[in-house]
Amino acid sequence: MERVAKACRTAAGLPNVEIVGIHMHIGSQILSAQPFADALQKLAGFCGELKAKYHSFRYVDIGGGIGIQYQAGQKPLSPKAYAAKVMPVLKRLGLSVVMEPGRYLVGNSAVLVCRVQYVKHNGKKTFVVVDAAMNDLIRPMLYEAHHDVLPVMRRKGVFRADLVGPICESGDFLALDRDLPVAEENDLLALTSAGAYGFTMASNYNSRPRPAEIMVDEKQSFVVRKRETWKDLVRGEILPG
Amino acid sequence: MERVAKACRTAAGLPNVEIVGIHMHIGSQILSAQPFADALQKLAGFCGELKAKYHSFRYVDIGGGIGIQYQAGQKPLSPKAYAAKVMPVLKRLGLSVVMEPGRYLVGNSAVLVCRVQYVKHNGKKTFVVVDAAMNDLIRPMLYEAHHDVLPVMRRKGVFRADLVGPICESGDFLALDRDLPVAEENDLLALTSAGAYGFTMASNYNSRPRPAEIMVDEKQSFVVRKRETWKDLVRGEILPG
Repeated sequence: MERVAKACRTAAGLPNVEIVGIHMHIGSQILSAQPFADALQKLAGFCGELKAKYHSFRYVDIGGGIGIQYQAGQKPLSPKAYAAKVMPVLKRLGLSVVMEPGRYLVGNSAVLVCRVQYVKHNGKKTFVVVDAAMNDLIRPMLYEAHHDVLPVMRRKGVFRADLVGPICESGDFLALDRDLPVAEENDLLALTSAGAYGFTMASNYNSRPRPAEIMVDEKQSFVVRKRETWKDLVRGEILPG
Repeated sequence: MERVAKACRTAAGLPNVEIVGIHMHIGSQILSAQPFADALQKLAGFCGELKAKYHSFRYVDIGGGIGIQYQAGQKPLSPKAYAAKVMPVLKRLGLSVVMEPGRYLVGNSAVLVCRVQYVKHNGKKTFVVVDAAMNDLIRPMLYEAHHDVLPVMRRKGVFRADLVGPICESGDFLALDRDLPVAEENDLLALTSAGAYGFTMASNYNSRPRPAEIMVDEKQSFVVRKRETWKDLVRGEILPG
C-alpha cells in the first residue's frame, strides 16, 4: 500500500499522467467470494483517499480470478454469491467498476474434441492414444490441471487409463490414471473446460498444425478459425541467399 | 522383448508389411555413453535373431537422447566417447545405423535474445522483466530447465534476480533466483541453448506474435523466419454469418 501511495505521488507530479484508477488482482481460479471481499475491503479506504486527493480518480478494477467448475464436486463461484460479497463495498466507493472474468465467460464454453488412435496396453497400464496432444492443450502437463473426459458417442462403462497424445515425450498427456469412457479406435472424446488457456497456449510442437475452432449455435455450426495446414507451419520461413 | 518378438511374428504374417528394422529410444538429455552401450548390448542379440529370421531386416535406429551442455560444469557427451561405446556393438551387427541426435545438433546453435523492459524491486526480491516470455521459451517453466543468461553488451558484475516475462501469470519466468548480469532498461540479454525445444514449442499466449529467427554465418545474418505480426494471429479467424 505504501509503494502504491508513493507511485501515485510520483505520477501526480508528472504533467502528462492522470491518475484514473486502481487495479487489484489477487489470483486465479478462486472458488470462494470471501477473498475478493477481503481484498476489496483492504482497498476501499485507499480508494477513498485517492478519490479525495485526485479528482481524475474514477475507476476501480477488481480484477479476475473467478473460478469455474473443472470437475464434478468442484463448486463454481456463482455470480450471485460474488456480487453479494463485493457489491456493498463497491457501492460505497462510487467508482466505475472494471472486472476481468475471462475464464468465467469462456472456460466452460468450449470442449476439445479428439479421436482415439489406438488403445495400448503396457503391462499393468492402459493408454488411450488420441490425436490431440499437449501442443493443443498444455494445462494438464503444465499445471497438473484436470479436464473432464466425455464420450461423444454414448458408451457403456469406464476403464482406468491415461489419455495421451502422439507427441514424442512422456509429458504428453491429457489425463492421468483416470476412469475414462471405454473407448475404441476412431471414437471421439471431448475434453471439457477447454475454452480458457486452451487454444491460446497451443503451439506447433512436433510440427503439428493447430486445430480448427468451431462455434456451435443451437443446431448450426460455423468454422470460426480454420484448421492450420503444413503451409501455416512454414509460411514465415525464408531460405537465405 | 517378448512383446517385440510377438509383434514381429504378427507383422511377418502380413502380406504387405516388411520387417526392416528396430528402433531403440532410452530417454532424453543423457550425459553418459554407458546407458546407450548397455541398451544396445541388450538389443544386439535380438537384432541377430531378427536378421537371421527376416532377410528384409537391415536397420537399427539407436534413437536420440544425447545430452548437451546447458550450464557450466555440466559435461556434455562427446561424439567420440559416444562412438567409442556404441561402435563396437554396432560393427558386429552389420546393420545400417539410423540415429536421431536432434538436440545435439541444434540445441546449442541458437540463443534467444531479449530486451530488458525494466528492473523491478519488490521488497527483498529483484525482477528483471524482459520482452521474451514463457510463450517464446517454455522450458524453464515446463521442465524447470536451466538456460544460461548472458549479457549481449559486456557488463560488470551480477545481481541476484529472477528473469521474467510480461505474461499475466506467476509462472512466466525464464530464470529463477539467479546471478544475472547487472542489467538496465533496454539492455539485451541472451538465453543460451535455445535451439532445441525453443521456437518449436512457442505459442501465441497473451496474443504475443512469435519472434523472428535469424541465421548468423560469420559476419553475415539472414532472417530465416519472419517475426509474426498481429495479422498472423488472426489470419485463420472467420466471423460467422
